[in-house]
Amino acid sequence: MIRTGIGFDAHRLAEDTPMWVAGLHFPDEPRGLAGHSDGDVACHAACDALLSAAGLGDMGSNFGTSDPAWAGASGVAFLAETASRVAAAGWHIGNVSIQVIGNRPRLAGRRAEAEKVISDALGGVPVSLAATTADGMGFTGAGEGVAAVATALIEAAHTIGVDRGSSTTHDQPQ
Amino acid sequence: MIRTGIGFDAHRLAEDTPMWVAGLHFPDEPRGLAGHSDGDVACHAACDALLSAAGLGDMGSNFGTSDPAWAGASGVAFLAETASRVAAAGWHIGNVSIQVIGNRPRLAGRRAEAEKVISDALGGVPVSLAATTADGMGFTGAGEGVAAVATALIEAAHTIGVDRGSSTTHDQPQ
Amino acid sequence: MIRTGIGFDAHRLAEDTPMWVAGLHFPDEPRGLAGHSDGDVACHAACDALLSAAGLGDMGSNFGTSDPAWAGASGVAFLAETASRVAAAGWHIGNVSIQVIGNRPRLAGRRAEAEKVISDALGGVPVSLAATTADGMGFTGAGEGVAAVATALIEAAHTIGVDRGSSTTHDQPQ
Repeated sequence: MIRTGIGFDAHRLAEDTPMWVAGLHFPDEPRGLAGHSDGDVACHAACDALLSAAGLGDMGSNFGTSDPAWAGASGVAFLAETASRVAAAGWHIGNVSIQVIGNRPRLAGRRAEAEKVISDALGGVPVSLAATTADGMGFTGAGEGVAAVATALIEAAHTIGVDRGSSTTHDQPQ
Repeated sequence: MIRTGIGFDAHRLAEDTPMWVAGLHFPDEPRGLAGHSDGDVACHAACDALLSAAGLGDMGSNFGTSDPAWAGASGVAFLAETASRVAAAGWHIGNVSIQVIGNRPRLAGRRAEAEKVISDALGGVPVSLAATTADGMGFTGAGEGVAAVATALIEAAHTIGVDRGSSTTHDQPQ
Repeated sequence: MIRTGIGFDAHRLAEDTPMWVAGLHFPDEPRGLAGHSDGDVACHAACDALLSAAGLGDMGSNFGTSDPAWAGASGVAFLAETASRVAAAGWHIGNVSIQVIGNRPRLAGRRAEAEKVISDALGGVPVSLAATTADGMGFTGAGEGVAAVATALIEAAHTIGVDRGSSTTHDQPQ
């Protein structure tokens, strides 16, 4: 039993805000993504894709934007908690694919690093991170903010004969 | 044999128009989604994802925005007809994941209700509905309209040993 | 072992530029999509979805927008090279689903043709092309540009018992 999920997120760029995206800090960026949490659109889109695939609601219903427990939480913290809830519901993550849409930061030079950070937060599953611009159009092209889309595949853990939470065998043919 | 599909839809908010989204009526909304049909972006995105996965074209080729037969049709009616066409082509729906992007209506309090309405229209398959805003940016952030993205997984009915249209066994491990 | 990928692309409409989208030339269009290559958002989104599913980076890392080798390259050329790289990495393409978002060109009358061109470039895999507008909203609605989203499913070639690059059997039940 395999299921798919999709996620979208967008946050505004703001002054005097550190830039965190795709689980990485970009210390040289003059602006960062604002939000109740750290505004990491890549991680948030991935969380929504995973939660949706598993039928567990969305970021809002799981983490409550007005809940002080999650104020300022990092994208990686949301990913780890999402992975825990998805596993507890009996699902194994197959893979996650994320694309960031925006002018900045430049992710190309740090893709492998970002993919590893996100993958580690999710327990070692395959994660792909892509980036593009909107060719100067729309709110991302105007530098007003950054968006991300993500998709995820999950599989019922009992279907593939692995223990919940174990990802050591999922890259083998089944 | 498994296939995936993606769908996107957006409609304008208009005065003197009832708000229908994700198969639900929101009677307290001051504006609603305008369209040849009821403007239900969530249902339309789901239909496009399913039709695309099955290689059956899109909403436009199936339901013709100038076709009076579908004028004012509800999102649920499109979903039911889409499910029928997908099943007739030999496909079983695995699951559908939808995310609505907009300021209004507030879907959080009615998610379970919406998921049930959409699932019922599709014959009982797993449906997930998420919602987010674009943080005040773009046409959804400006309150000009509402958008939705969706993804779907379908499987060849003969592959999984179920009769076309039967969904009673698809949640079991295969 | 099955993986999913997502892709997004957007390009500006420009005067004195031929319109190529979804692998087709639209000679009657007054404007076309501008880009380092031919600006074919449908093909580019499909490439990004496939590369992401296979964990091979994105269009930028594979084809370098500043690389003269790819200047003016057609969408179909990118698709063919992407398919080659995905196959070389041991993956078989299950299917690709693309949706173009924009006012023009009108794809409806040429959908089957576009699907065949894209499918041929990818070695004969199932390809679905859908189209929609953003109801006059945003940069696509304003006629500033055209966007596309895509999703892809790929499967480890050794899992399904086919030789790398062979697509002749993948439409059979497994």
